Amino acid sequence: MKVWEGKRFSVLVEDGTEIADSPGAVAIVAVDAEERVVLVRQERPAVGVKLLELPAGMIDEGEEPLATARRELREETGLHGGNWRELAAFWSAPGFVRHRLTVFAADGLEEGAAEPDEGEDLEIVRWPLEEVDARLVELEDAKTLAGLLLYLHELKS
Amino acid sequence: MKVWEGKRFSVLVEDGTEIADSPGAVAIVAVDAEERVVLVRQERPAVGVKLLELPAGMIDEGEEPLATARRELREETGLHGGNWRELAAFWSAPGFVRHRLTVFAADGLEEGAAEPDEGEDLEIVRWPLEEVDARLVELEDAKTLAGLLLYLHELKS
Repeated sequence: MKVWEGKRFSVLVEDGTEIADSPGAVAIVAVDAEERVVLVRQERPAVGVKLLELPAGMIDEGEEPLATARRELREETGLHGGNWRELAAFWSAPGFVRHRLTVFAADGLEEGAAEPDEGEDLEIVRWPLEEVDARLVELEDAKTLAGLLLYLHELKS
Repeated sequence: MKVWEGKRFSVLVEDGTEIADSPGAVAIVAVDAEERVVLVRQERPAVGVKLLELPAGMIDEGEEPLATARRELREETGLHGGNWRELAAFWSAPGFVRHRLTVFAADGLEEGAAEPDEGEDLEIVRWPLEEVDARLVELEDAKTLAGLLLYLHELKS
């Protein structure tokens, strides 16, 4: 039963379980031609801080996750083309949030002009891959930690 | 402004941002005397699947995260004592969920009897540390992926 409906998510109560129900989302570990991973820093009003995160976005209804990922990466950073693969898919907070995240890895990307949505205030940050290990302590977002660590893990194995 | 209140979380709307607001939580990378990481498998009604996860739990009001972690690990697995350190802290889904997770690492633990909450149906699963790399594909929970990968990452560096 839907007990509250917003623009970003709804609240369901099913057999006594309270659920924040949201469309799925994607995030991208994007590596540019100079072997730098491309991150975005933005204000996150829901948690009251600026966070450094993988480029990411919500899946539109009926859209394939890979199509969302290509669209969001191009809008947020201008990067496009390249080689893509799925890195992982996981639940953000399965105790009470129905929100599944698919993480892609992309390399061989071409540079282009970013076209952020109106109201999105994104700072693009590029970290050389070899510096990521030492900078993990700067990250406070679950998908970004999980995605970058999986990417590094696969590089080394 | 609070627009909905449940037992597990509330919904706030602040300056137009919709927020699922929840107490913080903890998760534990617990390694037993035989160098196995201790996981729990449980039904997650909010997402409709059984998931394999780090032992975890919500922080009671006024409780220190480390105290929650020691209590939850003992309740869910019986493991207690040992050496503890904070591994990381991060936001689960900072786009719309105010839910911060602190992950601890614990080793040198003593075995004991689990005392799960009524209604908790937990299966304890132990993975030898050297098998975790190859079994990451079995994990679909953000905190578990991030926590285990960080733990392995620190072991190797």
